[in-house]
Amino acid sequence: MTYHAFTEADAIAYAKKKGLFPEAAQVDSREIGDGNLNLVFHLTDRDTGKSVIFKQALPYAKVVGESWPLTLDRARIESEALIIQGKLCPGLVPEVYANEPELALTVMEDLSDHVIMRKGLIERTHYPKFADDISTFLARTLFFTSDLGMNQQDKKLQQGRFINPELCKITEDLIFDDPYTDSPNNSFDEHLRAEVEALWRDEQLHFEVAILREGFLTRTQALLHGDLHTGSIFVKPDSTKVIDPEFAYYGPMGFDVGAVIANLLLNYAGQEHWSRTAEERADYRAYLLETIEQIWTGFEAKFRALWNEHGVDRMSRTPGYQDYYMKRLLQDTIGYAGCKMIRRVHGLAHVADIDRIEDPAVRKRAQVIALTIGSALVKGNRSAESIRFVIDEAVKGAQQ
Amino acid sequence: MTYHAFTEADAIAYAKKKGLFPEAAQVDSREIGDGNLNLVFHLTDRDTGKSVIFKQALPYAKVVGESWPLTLDRARIESEALIIQGKLCPGLVPEVYANEPELALTVMEDLSDHVIMRKGLIERTHYPKFADDISTFLARTLFFTSDLGMNQQDKKLQQGRFINPELCKITEDLIFDDPYTDSPNNSFDEHLRAEVEALWRDEQLHFEVAILREGFLTRTQALLHGDLHTGSIFVKPDSTKVIDPEFAYYGPMGFDVGAVIANLLLNYAGQEHWSRTAEERADYRAYLLETIEQIWTGFEAKFRALWNEHGVDRMSRTPGYQDYYMKRLLQDTIGYAGCKMIRRVHGLAHVADIDRIEDPAVRKRAQVIALTIGSALVKGNRSAESIRFVIDEAVKGAQQ
Repeated sequence: MTYHAFTEADAIAYAKKKGLFPEAAQVDSREIGDGNLNLVFHLTDRDTGKSVIFKQALPYAKVVGESWPLTLDRARIESEALIIQGKLCPGLVPEVYANEPELALTVMEDLSDHVIMRKGLIERTHYPKFADDISTFLARTLFFTSDLGMNQQDKKLQQGRFINPELCKITEDLIFDDPYTDSPNNSFDEHLRAEVEALWRDEQLHFEVAILREGFLTRTQALLHGDLHTGSIFVKPDSTKVIDPEFAYYGPMGFDVGAVIANLLLNYAGQEHWSRTAEERADYRAYLLETIEQIWTGFEAKFRALWNEHGVDRMSRTPGYQDYYMKRLLQDTIGYAGCKMIRRVHGLAHVADIDRIEDPAVRKRAQVIALTIGSALVKGNRSAESIRFVIDEAVKGAQQ
Repeated sequence: MTYHAFTEADAIAYAKKKGLFPEAAQVDSREIGDGNLNLVFHLTDRDTGKSVIFKQALPYAKVVGESWPLTLDRARIESEALIIQGKLCPGLVPEVYANEPELALTVMEDLSDHVIMRKGLIERTHYPKFADDISTFLARTLFFTSDLGMNQQDKKLQQGRFINPELCKITEDLIFDDPYTDSPNNSFDEHLRAEVEALWRDEQLHFEVAILREGFLTRTQALLHGDLHTGSIFVKPDSTKVIDPEFAYYGPMGFDVGAVIANLLLNYAGQEHWSRTAEERADYRAYLLETIEQIWTGFEAKFRALWNEHGVDRMSRTPGYQDYYMKRLLQDTIGYAGCKMIRRVHGLAHVADIDRIEDPAVRKRAQVIALTIGSALVKGNRSAESIRFVIDEAVKGAQQ
């Protein structure tokens, strides 16, 4: 079957042909993608209520029109990553029902009963199970795809299947380059110009970013999700589902852990807005910081337990090495979290947590908080000793 | 053409079929391989004197019999690496005339007028051009295959073509694991047992080796030769040719630079034997240390010049980053040099520089010098500030 972008009707026809719905079923099909890189169809059987999701990669990035071509191979990468993650973390990613490489299509579990976590955080919802779920996801996917937890020759072959140059380039440019210079890819409120220009001149910051960029380019520690922001996580109070691993590749573990923490901190910055009272704002910020601490603490404990129980590398049991490794992983996490915060303020892609603040003065306060915390995490990453460093910088950053 | 191991007659027939010699030529064929992993045929036309080399990979490692199967894909890797290195460093690798993937065969320039450098060093020959040549080879091959010197998306695709699990495993086991434990792969003189057992218990040493091992497993800085000892280098006083890149893969740059330095230091240790007088021994050792210093100094200057002139990464021009990078590269070089020395004393594969010393007491002195210097380099790698550290440890190590 040669590639063509599906219409809603194409999706229904394909689903019936594949037996996902009976031929006679009345199936509704809606395109519900956020529209940057993919089509997403939601198909529902009107009678039974049964539903599935079709995700089809587009051969270009819609965000900049058809001028930014992208390989359809990312659909294969996404399907294969979902299947690996699903085996390692049953229930924490959508189930894959079918995939069709030529069509760059994956058919998977419908998660419409969940909400996108970014939206949930904006509505100040508490997710009591989230820290435990996401730290399990991180610990298991990162450990078992690394040289610590899988056969080192199989890992090299797997690494070869996740060479992902085009999607990595998006990250390399938009996270590790453009925000630090006067690039046409940047996009920011004019009221923020002085702060952004100061950042373009900050050589201490650039130095740390250059080191973190090098790590992203050259450190094949584990199979990463690669884009683990709160828009890639579906939640309910009792359930967490990680979606959209099309940026999956072998990279530094801290990039994934840092992405989660960065996006909680972006919401933390955005709390300037929604809280009706100072107390309510303080309460939700305290919840976010507590969640961050639980995520790191849970991740570290689970990762160490997997290492002790399932470590495949004799040399990795050398006394002192695990402590050394975990400290560097924490430091990477902090550095990458900082990079991921900064780029969301004045780079190409922003976050609704901050952008939706209508009052420019309040929005600017939130933007400055995010830049302040992000810069502090980047600059301090190599000397950080515990997750308390993040909490302390977040508290300081909010006291603008 | 399906794979079969060539006989000397097969090589002649193939060469004539391919037009490398006239049909009527009287061609002599000799198998001259050192015999671990490959067949090597030397073909000469009796009349014209024209000669070529056939190198054919065997589907197993001869060193342990047919029980250690190896993929023939390494012949493709070797050919492709030679071609890349030849483009980057014309004249510093043998020219490739033809390659035949199905036969795991590469036909290349005959370098019989050169000698294997290990042999030359054992004969205490001076190679006045070597430091300049090898530092050029290292600087150009490592820089232009890294994210600093080539398009970062092309580099990822190239990295995918040099996934080399089986040959990497040989390194992972024989260099970064077996020497540090009572492994059946080790092989050593009984007179060395106390020193070897002390090394098996040395947790400070193991800790540093674990970090260096992690770097070998996960850091895809550049396309390495991967096995750059003095048995992989052909020399004449006025010419240097690097051969045998079948271990080529994307790894940490310091592994290649360190391999060269380690093998000069192994010869340095082996000088216990050949020198007739203390003065002659001191002279050749001084020559070796001077060469090591010139290699690093030349490499660093050339690598920095390439970076300044041909750097492709905007962020890599951040002030301070190049200095930081070069310092870590020096430290990696020192660490990997230490690992490569240690494994040659009591691991599976030794070096003639030391093993050919007949007198056991003298051989033991050389072995202890090599272990002492190797351990000092490994333990000191992360705090080393200049190549003087290596020179100083070598001088100290010889004063046993």
